[in-house]
Amino acid sequence: MNIEKPTLIIDKEKVKRNIERMANRVSASGSGIRFRPHFKTHRSSEVGEWFREAGITAIAVSSVEMAVFFAKHRWNDITIAIMVNPLQIRTIDELAGRVKLGVLVDSPQSIDFLEANLNHPVSVWIKIDTGYHRTGINWNNKELIMETINRIKESNNLNFSGLLTHSGMSYAVRSTDELRGIYLDTISKMNDIRDSFEKKGIRGIKISYGDTPTCSIMERFHGIDEIRCGNFVYYDVQQLYLGACKTEDIGAAVACPVIARYPERNELILYGGAVHLSKDTALHPDGRKIYGLVSLPQGNEWGEPLEETVVSSLSQEHGIVRTTEKIIKQVKVGDVLIVLPVHSCLVNTQESF
Amino acid sequence: MNIEKPTLIIDKEKVKRNIERMANRVSASGSGIRFRPHFKTHRSSEVGEWFREAGITAIAVSSVEMAVFFAKHRWNDITIAIMVNPLQIRTIDELAGRVKLGVLVDSPQSIDFLEANLNHPVSVWIKIDTGYHRTGINWNNKELIMETINRIKESNNLNFSGLLTHSGMSYAVRSTDELRGIYLDTISKMNDIRDSFEKKGIRGIKISYGDTPTCSIMERFHGIDEIRCGNFVYYDVQQLYLGACKTEDIGAAVACPVIARYPERNELILYGGAVHLSKDTALHPDGRKIYGLVSLPQGNEWGEPLEETVVSSLSQEHGIVRTTEKIIKQVKVGDVLIVLPVHSCLVNTQESF
Repeated sequence: MNIEKPTLIIDKEKVKRNIERMANRVSASGSGIRFRPHFKTHRSSEVGEWFREAGITAIAVSSVEMAVFFAKHRWNDITIAIMVNPLQIRTIDELAGRVKLGVLVDSPQSIDFLEANLNHPVSVWIKIDTGYHRTGINWNNKELIMETINRIKESNNLNFSGLLTHSGMSYAVRSTDELRGIYLDTISKMNDIRDSFEKKGIRGIKISYGDTPTCSIMERFHGIDEIRCGNFVYYDVQQLYLGACKTEDIGAAVACPVIARYPERNELILYGGAVHLSKDTALHPDGRKIYGLVSLPQGNEWGEPLEETVVSSLSQEHGIVRTTEKIIKQVKVGDVLIVLPVHSCLVNTQESF
Repeated sequence: MNIEKPTLIIDKEKVKRNIERMANRVSASGSGIRFRPHFKTHRSSEVGEWFREAGITAIAVSSVEMAVFFAKHRWNDITIAIMVNPLQIRTIDELAGRVKLGVLVDSPQSIDFLEANLNHPVSVWIKIDTGYHRTGINWNNKELIMETINRIKESNNLNFSGLLTHSGMSYAVRSTDELRGIYLDTISKMNDIRDSFEKKGIRGIKISYGDTPTCSIMERFHGIDEIRCGNFVYYDVQQLYLGACKTEDIGAAVACPVIARYPERNELILYGGAVHLSKDTALHPDGRKIYGLVSLPQGNEWGEPLEETVVSSLSQEHGIVRTTEKIIKQVKVGDVLIVLPVHSCLVNTQESF
């Protein structure tokens, strides 16, 4: 491992296993379900190719910039899974002329805006809020959902794709039973909408669903047409503590040089801080907020997380590792430690400072 | 303001005023004090030029990468204000051949390492821990400080610059009285070391000091030879709540498109999330953790923060703004809001996703 500074490292074998496991779970759920992985976690054309090798042809991204990036890397079926940003409508339209583009809306007004500003056809998903309360039409507001569907159907360039939701509340639970509950509740709400519209003669409404915690604990999916999770490609300490993965599934980490050691307080100081790992936290089983787990390099990968060893604090470029007397004796300044990140989506993947 | 996506915007007038105010305070403190601003907050060659116009010739940075960057932009006196990373020693040595380079150490072993690996002369600062407990030799451990000084003096390429400290604990206080206390306590500890060594015949030891909170509330500095603060160039909401600045001093913000609005819960959704603003938080006077204050654009700048309006939550690309019924009526999807960041050092300054 030739590391000089904080560096994102990927365990290709683990990542490919994560991709395959989720892809297999989707295909085992029935031929009608499409796997549209979210590429916001890795943001990497190379990792994208590993998905392609697993048979993936459709993707989700979380910004117009990412859509442009992956279109350049030969992805032709892209959903921009964030509410349409009207200020980027020219780029969206230009992109819709080149790839099969999906966008998200939450009101009839957004449809009017798209209809007035797009020259190329796009697929439109109505974002449904099933309890996360970030974006979307409340699942109970069938009148507004109906009005939005009707407006899409009246338009020229817009094709109605279906209903899309993100159960982000799954990041706040503490057991896999709760995760299962969120999955079942969301599926039930989404199908309640679909059923009520089918009775009114609107048939073939698709449901797009996806968040890594719930998708990771279900063996099979039902009542949905598209799976859109993304974090599973790398996983991280948050997912570990949610019960969504095991430590051996975590496929991305940040290699950090040790720049100081203080045996008198069992602390090691890393060159590797908030700009590399982000200030997101996970709740350690012992009740403390942590910024990462720590392991030792093994060839080009890393070993099991070290016992009683955590990143306990981060500033801009520094990470403080709290560890044991035994471990601190084995580590010297100039060594490299591997930080398993709390939230892999926020790890800086680019050369920057 | 021509904004399409989350964009860092700078109020040049405010930033220049911040630079001038701190520069004036340093020069008013006596001709013997050098102002060596920390460039880790702005990381911008252009903002660097504004410092140059204010007469600044010496700078601090927090990584070797930043040192290389600013050396390229004609800065010739640079302290890398983070413990030496042995894995970057070749770059450090190469840079030391081109500019007057300062480095930080905390042990005689680091001196041995530098002596064995450098071909070019560097200035060496001994990092002193006066209570922050991140890096440095404990201020009380005069024996180890003495041993390190002696080792520097015995070496060939290493010039002893003095003692350097960072009172990072100033970020955890809640009043300017406490800030003043930290400043006075730190100065007293640093001078205690200097005095005890002067008695032993080691004369001319310089003291380098710097953190924005304490440097912002002192009218004059005493007992130190170098001021090294950096955040003051932009300030931010953390500094505001510490009493280190006023809202009108905050010189950097992130312009974010509004992509959804939910009057039923008084929330606006921004395209602008953790990758742009960081997940760092500030404690709002009402007791809640927030991720930013919010104001309206005014020409190329921004107005006063909106009342009862905060960024209450951030995910990767989304920001949730909690606001009032009155304000939400004035804002529509496609507008731009300005987020005053919680921690300007962690705002993403580069084009990335």
